[in-house]
Amino acid sequence: MMPSPAQLAALDAADPLGAARARFRLPPGLVYLDGNSLGPLPAALPASLAHTLAHEWGSGLIRSWNDAGWIDLPVTLGAAIAPIVGAEAGAVVACDSVSLNLFKLASAALAMRPGRRTVLMEADDFPTDAYVMQGLCQLAGVTLKRAARADLVAALDDDTALLLLSHAHYVTGQVHDMATMNAAAHAAGALTLWDLSHAAGALVVALDADGADFAVGCGYKYLNGGPGAPAFAYLARRHWDSAQPALTGWMGHARPFDFAADYAPAAGARRLLTGTPPILAMRALEAGVATFAGIDMAAAEAKSRQLVQLFAAGAAHLPGVTVDSLPAGRPFERRAAHCIIRHPAARRVMIALIARGVVGDMRPPDAMRFGFPALTTRFADVGLALAALHAVLASGEWQDDCFTPKGVVS
Amino acid sequence: MMPSPAQLAALDAADPLGAARARFRLPPGLVYLDGNSLGPLPAALPASLAHTLAHEWGSGLIRSWNDAGWIDLPVTLGAAIAPIVGAEAGAVVACDSVSLNLFKLASAALAMRPGRRTVLMEADDFPTDAYVMQGLCQLAGVTLKRAARADLVAALDDDTALLLLSHAHYVTGQVHDMATMNAAAHAAGALTLWDLSHAAGALVVALDADGADFAVGCGYKYLNGGPGAPAFAYLARRHWDSAQPALTGWMGHARPFDFAADYAPAAGARRLLTGTPPILAMRALEAGVATFAGIDMAAAEAKSRQLVQLFAAGAAHLPGVTVDSLPAGRPFERRAAHCIIRHPAARRVMIALIARGVVGDMRPPDAMRFGFPALTTRFADVGLALAALHAVLASGEWQDDCFTPKGVVS
Repeated sequence: MMPSPAQLAALDAADPLGAARARFRLPPGLVYLDGNSLGPLPAALPASLAHTLAHEWGSGLIRSWNDAGWIDLPVTLGAAIAPIVGAEAGAVVACDSVSLNLFKLASAALAMRPGRRTVLMEADDFPTDAYVMQGLCQLAGVTLKRAARADLVAALDDDTALLLLSHAHYVTGQVHDMATMNAAAHAAGALTLWDLSHAAGALVVALDADGADFAVGCGYKYLNGGPGAPAFAYLARRHWDSAQPALTGWMGHARPFDFAADYAPAAGARRLLTGTPPILAMRALEAGVATFAGIDMAAAEAKSRQLVQLFAAGAAHLPGVTVDSLPAGRPFERRAAHCIIRHPAARRVMIALIARGVVGDMRPPDAMRFGFPALTTRFADVGLALAALHAVLASGEWQDDCFTPKGVVS
Repeated sequence: MMPSPAQLAALDAADPLGAARARFRLPPGLVYLDGNSLGPLPAALPASLAHTLAHEWGSGLIRSWNDAGWIDLPVTLGAAIAPIVGAEAGAVVACDSVSLNLFKLASAALAMRPGRRTVLMEADDFPTDAYVMQGLCQLAGVTLKRAARADLVAALDDDTALLLLSHAHYVTGQVHDMATMNAAAHAAGALTLWDLSHAAGALVVALDADGADFAVGCGYKYLNGGPGAPAFAYLARRHWDSAQPALTGWMGHARPFDFAADYAPAAGARRLLTGTPPILAMRALEAGVATFAGIDMAAAEAKSRQLVQLFAAGAAHLPGVTVDSLPAGRPFERRAAHCIIRHPAARRVMIALIARGVVGDMRPPDAMRFGFPALTTRFADVGLALAALHAVLASGEWQDDCFTPKGVVS
């Protein structure tokens, strides 16, 4: 069922989160539904980054490591991210990439469970997570085991050192109950590592309350930190003295300016740091995280859910389309802030959509993915996207053999 | 012997590299001798980064991964760095940090020498390099052996998988003969990994010609890429098909957009990539590397050497000062583009110097370090720095017990 423009306009008018869109610079006329892959530009960033360039780097030069607080940015930025993912301030640091942080925390888990030789992950989870685990497992002589979602708990055993899960699945949007899975892993004596890439800034996440051990998350999706922004890493307080990642570096040293010959980990989550932090990228992430000021994540999740439901309901009746997210007629299920619809020519349809100013992305072979971040998406966008999708499918333009796809990337 | 202002002015007037200073924005009145720790702001960057923000990120959004060439930046930027370090274009990628690239390449070396269980490095090399190797060796069950500079060749044996060396030492500025050390390592059946942090952009480096296997280098020192800029990594052509680092990620996959379940390394140096590249930081590094356009590295090394020699000769006669670099009365020795002088109160003296507008850094316990990058340093700076140093030492202000040091960081 297509929502009417009037219905959508009324929802926008009543939306308490609607004002947050002014915190961004979005191109006029574009319906941007790919904030789940790259969040838009925070409006405050161009001026603040120009200041960082001219004054902090240009004039302050090396002195800015102290005077502008560069040296503490991984920690101060981590403290700003922490409430968005339900963590105490000292448990989160901003650093490196999701891939590298996964490696760090998984290597720490292996060292904390020395008798156990298996890492368990979900069979069709984000491929990079598997690549990282393959590299680690090969180096450490450990087995990587993959189990289907329904078989994960049964696959936990007394050889499992670590259970690695995505909180929200990058394609289906399915959400694991974090507390339940943590409890299951802990009952088996294993530790848990959560990939929050498609959850942080989109859903309510409660790392501390739900008993997570480790987590990583992405800076450039819902957190709006810019292309390839630094990621973040979480270390539960009970592991602050015991976790020791195999990836080290001077920023994670207890006394980085002593230039001591041997490594000694810093206290707390700071030990997750490795090399020198990329300050320009950190300042951009800082501006992205600042767009969450005053935002209640429960309200954000509820708004995104409503957007996804409206879009899914409208798309379900289009020719050739299968809606994967929030299937009708089933009990309530928590889902991510993105919606997957499937079409045999997903790639060509998405390219035609982008040409019409509606930007989503696609995942092979047949999934089109549309993201509905609460801070930047209008209810009106749902109507515009559905209308464009209808027009593309009805026109048949995606069937044209002369249609040359340009890459669709994320 | 103090050089005279007239002598220095004549050297500046005749300096063919003197015009390169206009490629940077340097604060007026400051004598900045810490480009070996953080290079200055390229003059072109503020405008180009504003464009990246407004147009590539702000308007292009996710489409810029293709349209603005973001996806290939690690490779295109690597190709721009390659000639500065004597490498063919395809052998270098820009990515991650020095620490993480060290881990990647050392893990690849261990896998390529499976019967060998030792990594050898120099005893007093940069501490982070040791920290990274300690983390790797512990995970892989390998021994880290450290030998004094003079004992390195003798310490190579049939258990050595990898020899890790800094081309230019971060304190003493001593330079290893790369061809000699590569030959010695290869004769023992070991591979070599070079840390170029204090060499790339300062000295003539000839990775290909000298037979290096692997190398890493820093983006934020002589390459002027900005605070915490991405680093680079080098993989010799003969290892393009055989090196497989333990740190992986989707950017290093042979087909990153297939979302395949299992890791398969990309061809060539691209396999050194891990997670999504930080585009804003990469653009800044691109501007930094561009400051080397048309620069002959032999001329740059020769100019820095002359600057160091003038400074060392002038400092040698100051009260309480010992000059460590380029000691007089010894045969010619190749040295880095920085100069170390020692004083029992190095920290306080350096802080007093900075207060007078002469910026170097210090390394515990007693070393003051001054960098003389050829692109940004004037011969006149040598005179100004020596005069300030003389004034500080003569005034005795660094002896005042009420003098409160602020941290000096690099």
